[in-house]
Amino acid sequence: MNVNGKHYRTIWLNEKDTVQIIDQRWLPHEFVIEDLNTVEDVAVAIKDMHVRGAGLIGATAGWGMYVAAKQAKSVEELEKMGDYLKQQRPTAINLEWAIDRQLNEIKKSNIEDRVNVARNVAKQIEDEDAEYCRMIGVHGYKIIEDISKRKNSTVNILTHCNAGWLAFVDYGSATAPIYEAYNRGIDVHVWVDETRPRNQGARLTAWELNMHGVKHTVIADNVGGHLMQNGLVDMVIVGTDRTTYTGYVANKIGTYLKALAAKANNVPFYVALPSSTFDWELENGYDIPIEQRSGEEVKYIQGLLNGKIEKVLLTPEQSNAVNYAFDVTPPELVTGLITERGICEAKKESILKLYPEKLV
Amino acid sequence: MNVNGKHYRTIWLNEKDTVQIIDQRWLPHEFVIEDLNTVEDVAVAIKDMHVRGAGLIGATAGWGMYVAAKQAKSVEELEKMGDYLKQQRPTAINLEWAIDRQLNEIKKSNIEDRVNVARNVAKQIEDEDAEYCRMIGVHGYKIIEDISKRKNSTVNILTHCNAGWLAFVDYGSATAPIYEAYNRGIDVHVWVDETRPRNQGARLTAWELNMHGVKHTVIADNVGGHLMQNGLVDMVIVGTDRTTYTGYVANKIGTYLKALAAKANNVPFYVALPSSTFDWELENGYDIPIEQRSGEEVKYIQGLLNGKIEKVLLTPEQSNAVNYAFDVTPPELVTGLITERGICEAKKESILKLYPEKLV
Repeated sequence: MNVNGKHYRTIWLNEKDTVQIIDQRWLPHEFVIEDLNTVEDVAVAIKDMHVRGAGLIGATAGWGMYVAAKQAKSVEELEKMGDYLKQQRPTAINLEWAIDRQLNEIKKSNIEDRVNVARNVAKQIEDEDAEYCRMIGVHGYKIIEDISKRKNSTVNILTHCNAGWLAFVDYGSATAPIYEAYNRGIDVHVWVDETRPRNQGARLTAWELNMHGVKHTVIADNVGGHLMQNGLVDMVIVGTDRTTYTGYVANKIGTYLKALAAKANNVPFYVALPSSTFDWELENGYDIPIEQRSGEEVKYIQGLLNGKIEKVLLTPEQSNAVNYAFDVTPPELVTGLITERGICEAKKESILKLYPEKLV
Repeated sequence: MNVNGKHYRTIWLNEKDTVQIIDQRWLPHEFVIEDLNTVEDVAVAIKDMHVRGAGLIGATAGWGMYVAAKQAKSVEELEKMGDYLKQQRPTAINLEWAIDRQLNEIKKSNIEDRVNVARNVAKQIEDEDAEYCRMIGVHGYKIIEDISKRKNSTVNILTHCNAGWLAFVDYGSATAPIYEAYNRGIDVHVWVDETRPRNQGARLTAWELNMHGVKHTVIADNVGGHLMQNGLVDMVIVGTDRTTYTGYVANKIGTYLKALAAKANNVPFYVALPSSTFDWELENGYDIPIEQRSGEEVKYIQGLLNGKIEKVLLTPEQSNAVNYAFDVTPPELVTGLITERGICEAKKESILKLYPEKLV
């Protein structure tokens, strides 16, 4: 998508053969590009959230394995580096998925070709991610169009966290239908949950929408229920970090609360995801590992002060804080899943109808 | 309650006949005492939230009318000052209630006695608030004791916003049962919702509990649903800014989301309130006026940086933000109301059984 009129993806290989990313920690206040030269750089970028979001974690892992292929002297070493990268974020399924895909392709080919193979596979993962998100938009905008026709006024869409193009390579998952609708001239307005503690909504989704010109309003995470009670939300679209083939949706902490409110107020609640985010093995969504991050991310918050990015303390210094990063929304609260192949229910049978090759 | 070992109320008349408050805007980082010398001082203290919380707004309005009685030359002037104070916060019923109580008493007596009458009524309101909160603790701790006996381990209580002693004159409403249980040696731990956008949980509830020595953990507002899904919350206790005699609970924005999660996970959800917080006239809770505050309170947040209290910008400067301050939780999500007269259901019949004098 565009940044001040210039097209960017969130990750790319530049003409000097260097993997580059947008270091998202400084958005919306500074636009910083970072080089990833070593596997350690890649691990830090994933763990400390220079990059984040299901698809982009996958794409970064893909390019990370290209960096690894240049460093490693054997397949064993490469596998160790893959394991090391996998440990950086436990909830996002795309991380495992991209690394395993790389290792499989590399093992299938000649060991001397590993760098070329890894480069091609990384580029494939990158391009596929962008294309799948584009297709999510093509399928999903129709839901928005229907509401727009029925309502004949602005369609108000609530989203949580950032499942925008910054969370993928391009377009985003939850935002893809929104961008597609906007580009087709449908009148949309987005309620942006700020998404504490890391404020991915207030920092990233608001920045994206602002850059693209989409009307939006930032709200505290506490507000969505009140808006839904008062008819101010026409639909919810969120992304997911892992969705089981049985329809359980792991997404940014707080998603579950919005899903409960949507159900209670008859607001459609959609989850947008490319197939790389499905977990085809876990049956019980409550078995998804939930990452716990440092409580310091709750106690301190980052913002702009006199042109500088600073961190301020919010709580008494002595108070303890905990920081669960994700929660699980059960299938009965989900109206539908928007994938690159179309829209289905959050049910095994319906999901497998779209992905029959997974039926084994 | 105690601040560094010295007992304080949140508002008092000092020996020089000056009304003083704790200016809560600087907590937990600085403990500031402010003089309220004019009706304008009182209005600003209420509107800009130097004081906040149902009971304390009432007590400040009570003492505000004492300040007004010293300034005003006629009952008409006093009524105008009362109307002016009432406009400062639309949702809190205690504001109206305290001002009307003062005006009624002053009108019943000799106009020359207005200052004496207003001083006595203000002190009555102050003392009554403290005593009612104490009684809420006496009735409410039994619920905690029951859970403690059944569970035989730490009782985990989630609370939203600050309905602590800082929101009243002393003890608090939601915190009164917690302090009472703690003082009786029951093992309690409090999940403190930080309560965006003004962070009354992270700033005030955490500070209070820390000062009193009660175990607590600060969490983002997004976390409560996940905790309840995982059996980590034994009960919820919140306060309220206005509860209708039919059992609708207006409280800090986000309360409704926690009530939905509590219902979905069979967690008892209690609302603690003194009788001054009941609205005996409104039948439909959705008719309660919901205050909208400045979006700047969402876009900027205050915290401590290098020993100074600073405000940092969280969003893109261009992004819009809205700030609904309260929401309404319907009776069917409320397990019980804890009042100074005992515990009842959030139903007209049950409430009126405790307050039969309101049956007209």
